[in-house]
Amino acid sequence: MAGIKKYKHDDKGSYTLGLAPTIDLLLCKPELADKIFTHSNIEKNENTGRLYQLCAKHNVPIEENDKVFNILSQKGNCFVIGMFQKFQTVLSETSHILLVSPSDAGNVGNIIRTAVGFGIKNIGIIKPAVDVFDPKAIRASMGALFYINFENFENMDSYRKQYPNHNLYAFTIDAQTSLSAVKFDEPYSLIFGNEATGLPSEYSNFCKTVTIPYSKKIDSLNLASAISIAAYIATIATEN
Amino acid sequence: MAGIKKYKHDDKGSYTLGLAPTIDLLLCKPELADKIFTHSNIEKNENTGRLYQLCAKHNVPIEENDKVFNILSQKGNCFVIGMFQKFQTVLSETSHILLVSPSDAGNVGNIIRTAVGFGIKNIGIIKPAVDVFDPKAIRASMGALFYINFENFENMDSYRKQYPNHNLYAFTIDAQTSLSAVKFDEPYSLIFGNEATGLPSEYSNFCKTVTIPYSKKIDSLNLASAISIAAYIATIATEN
Repeated sequence: MAGIKKYKHDDKGSYTLGLAPTIDLLLCKPELADKIFTHSNIEKNENTGRLYQLCAKHNVPIEENDKVFNILSQKGNCFVIGMFQKFQTVLSETSHILLVSPSDAGNVGNIIRTAVGFGIKNIGIIKPAVDVFDPKAIRASMGALFYINFENFENMDSYRKQYPNHNLYAFTIDAQTSLSAVKFDEPYSLIFGNEATGLPSEYSNFCKTVTIPYSKKIDSLNLASAISIAAYIATIATEN
Repeated sequence: MAGIKKYKHDDKGSYTLGLAPTIDLLLCKPELADKIFTHSNIEKNENTGRLYQLCAKHNVPIEENDKVFNILSQKGNCFVIGMFQKFQTVLSETSHILLVSPSDAGNVGNIIRTAVGFGIKNIGIIKPAVDVFDPKAIRASMGALFYINFENFENMDSYRKQYPNHNLYAFTIDAQTSLSAVKFDEPYSLIFGNEATGLPSEYSNFCKTVTIPYSKKIDSLNLASAISIAAYIATIATEN
């Protein structure tokens, strides 16, 4: 299988593992899809029919090739793989979620899924950070990665220069203001730190800080849980 | 290493992987701790000092034994393992989270951590379901498992017979009532279905049904995300 290798961060392309994210790829970014592979054990049903239709519509080659699955998929329940070119977009002027140095690919994928679920379609990431094109992140996003604008930033200064009009809300464990007391002014940026270390303290110099109160019996809320709650509250509160 | 084997569901005991959950074991359920193992590469610091103090206080044997780690821990960053007897408690008459046939151990551990974070210390599980004593679940709970009451139920009927006074709120994707419009009357049970299949439709016959509105661009919210939001809203709303 010349050219088919396990994903590395420097690669220009990545791949979707599974039918659902591959369909999202073909729905949202068909121009970036290079080739779709199917496994001989794939179930023929309405969804796989849709896969073939989308490939035909967008002139994306589709091939049955079990060997590709041996190389790229550890899990036995994957019967579709989509190869695609990675992309980077700029964020829109609407509200953002900004992740500062997230380190877990599955977490980031799950966060993207939740963000899309609450209509926040712009995700910024401050480096150093995990790669959102890691197939693990794409899989955890259930294909939601293809619905967002996302942009990497070298540091917080470059983000602030590029989006000077955003109201910055930094989520920390020791902020004075509780989530239930915050009024989120649009466009806002909901800013979250690394899973283990949180946000650097200097963020309080240029952000409003917000905390989600929790029992001291746990060290912290899980990052994806905290973002789910914040995104729900911010979007519910601002849509009324 | 006679007697040290990978965890199986039928075992009477299980184990904590890592320093933090082992300390929670010794703080909350010292009477159930059989033995603590440390790895020779363990860092000597304040927290490991606390581990030795807790073992001495509760007469729990502690032994350096690298072989145990080869058998029980796949990850290289685990330097403490606690062996303990599994337990089952009954739930208290305060509010509950009730999981119907959850299938992912990491998810359930994460849910337990979030529940404790929001002060909900009673978790019921309707079978068939994943085992909360799976070391993966304990690890994902970050030790929060030892702070809760938890109880398995053969079916929903036996839960309802045992806790007839609880107000039942079933989270479904097609309920008429949105989370933001619900008033949670204590004691309540927040009820969630399986990750992939959700709750059986008959739950609407005996529960108030609640939905967390989300964009149709995603199939569903992640179970742990949905529970995080529901637990936050229910506990914030009822504490005022």
